Amino acid sequence: MINYILKDENAVYHECGFSCDNELYLKLGDEAFFITDPRYTIEAKQKVKNAEVIEASRDIYIEAKKILRDSKIKKIFYDPANFSVAQFRKLKQSLKITFKSAPNFSQKKRIVKSDREIELLRVAVKLGSEAFDRFAHYLQNEGIGKSEQYINFEAMRELQLHGKYDLSFHPITAIDENAAKPHAYASDKLLTPDALLLIDAGLKYERFCSDRTRVAQLGSEMNFSKVQSFKDTKKQKVYDTVLKAQEASIKAAKVGVKASDIDKAGRNVIEKAGFGKYFVHSTGHGVGLDIHELPVISQKSSVIIEENMVFTIEPGIYLPDEFGVRIEDMVLATSNGVEIL
Amino acid sequence: MINYILKDENAVYHECGFSCDNELYLKLGDEAFFITDPRYTIEAKQKVKNAEVIEASRDIYIEAKKILRDSKIKKIFYDPANFSVAQFRKLKQSLKITFKSAPNFSQKKRIVKSDREIELLRVAVKLGSEAFDRFAHYLQNEGIGKSEQYINFEAMRELQLHGKYDLSFHPITAIDENAAKPHAYASDKLLTPDALLLIDAGLKYERFCSDRTRVAQLGSEMNFSKVQSFKDTKKQKVYDTVLKAQEASIKAAKVGVKASDIDKAGRNVIEKAGFGKYFVHSTGHGVGLDIHELPVISQKSSVIIEENMVFTIEPGIYLPDEFGVRIEDMVLATSNGVEIL
Repeated sequence: MINYILKDENAVYHECGFSCDNELYLKLGDEAFFITDPRYTIEAKQKVKNAEVIEASRDIYIEAKKILRDSKIKKIFYDPANFSVAQFRKLKQSLKITFKSAPNFSQKKRIVKSDREIELLRVAVKLGSEAFDRFAHYLQNEGIGKSEQYINFEAMRELQLHGKYDLSFHPITAIDENAAKPHAYASDKLLTPDALLLIDAGLKYERFCSDRTRVAQLGSEMNFSKVQSFKDTKKQKVYDTVLKAQEASIKAAKVGVKASDIDKAGRNVIEKAGFGKYFVHSTGHGVGLDIHELPVISQKSSVIIEENMVFTIEPGIYLPDEFGVRIEDMVLATSNGVEIL
Repeated sequence: MINYILKDENAVYHECGFSCDNELYLKLGDEAFFITDPRYTIEAKQKVKNAEVIEASRDIYIEAKKILRDSKIKKIFYDPANFSVAQFRKLKQSLKITFKSAPNFSQKKRIVKSDREIELLRVAVKLGSEAFDRFAHYLQNEGIGKSEQYINFEAMRELQLHGKYDLSFHPITAIDENAAKPHAYASDKLLTPDALLLIDAGLKYERFCSDRTRVAQLGSEMNFSKVQSFKDTKKQKVYDTVLKAQEASIKAAKVGVKASDIDKAGRNVIEKAGFGKYFVHSTGHGVGLDIHELPVISQKSSVIIEENMVFTIEPGIYLPDEFGVRIEDMVLATSNGVEIL
């Protein structure tokens, strides 16, 4: 049995089914404690599973230190990314306990998804996909002449369904040369007929994230399927290359392969087409409670794919000052390759 | 001349007029460096003032360490709330420099606002107030039967004006007993005629935040002015008490007084009316680039108010399982008391 302390909201949620914006979670052998302040005690007592809820009258750190002192434990694990220097100092001060650094402690525990988690991820992806369809419909009817910022808001509207769902992240809606920036901010650039539009967006269902990227040309047949026609031949060539790369990575992905080989399969396609230096990021990332979690699907990643890992496959080509294309889906590793969610 | 290192986005923006989501800012005597990654270099070079822009090819911390090593400095200040344990370790490792903890380093520098900052805050408050007016109009016409979540989204829509403005924070829209929770999450509770609705919301103009809270009863004369009529006599009594408390705190606020005396003036009104134990938070907080900054206006705050400080005055009464009332405005300290923004 090991001892650990968690502060990250998703890490804590994963342990006990509840979290709020002021909490510490302690696991000490076979005992567990959820420490929060009076604003959240009632809800915590209703929802926290397998842990005792402790109400901190003054400060959750002071309360945690009391429990740690009484426990007589000698060693505890923590994730150094999740505590600020100030918080960690407050926690450690005057305790005779060794704090052992365990980077990505919770994400490592969450790298393989349970059946229930996969079910929730499936629903999130389905709802996200439906939002893309409604958004395409909106763009076809009303998109022309609207700014990136304006349609960015419309994308959020479709994803959130009037407050019903949270966003996985602030969506990216980028036109032509702005789509060449992998992390574009929405600007006041206006949508014109024949413009290339990139949208990268997702929503949360029961806290589990969806994540998808599509590129399309505005017009009367606007949709966000992966079959796309562009009037401009260069755009078409780049689009087809990225799609071929995504298909190659998807085909390479299966239980037992190295994550780096999934990256390599798509990267080879892009390199052979002469665009290698314009694929400036890695191929994918795990998705779950966090929008970015393990495994990392990159050139350097030594992770071996296991059954029930869920991750994105999202190659891209970014031509500065021209346009960019990225195609992204979430996949589930199964015994027969991957299933596109 | 002192040396310091900053990572918080608003702290960095205050120094040099630009920030992004991956940066470090170093001030070493009369030299300054803005370190970022290739995604942001072009924009940084256009916008950063009074600092050299350094592109980190691998990692901004590695780049910062190179500069620190070359500088021969012996001592540097940092804010322990702004670095995670992991980041701070990476930064310090193998450097022979003393890192001196300086909590709230940037917020202390920003506690008194410049004329330009006050102008931007004025615009933010005006735009926020206009959004409240539009939102009241919407509620009057279409609010009945909508859920807290639904109208929460409508509030965001009015504040953001289709992506034109960012939110200062996720708005609070709470009905009756949910308004009794100072940090209510929007639920599926439906708006009914005669319901009490609390809205706490703000937007950013050129990165400066607005913040306002109003309480109103739904109906044909719906508005978010501070003059409100409630059918229920208890609601009316509580509302009038909070308004009187806010007026007392506003009257007490002027250059040279202690922040705790501003708190006391309003708290006295609420205590005398018999609701003392239901005013469960402090009276206000500074507002600027951060939605919560210095000064703190609380019972314990020893800050002396200076000219051109900007802060909220927001007393409240929260009756569990019944309803809650909070009235909040932003004020500017001037030589003649405060001006309500």
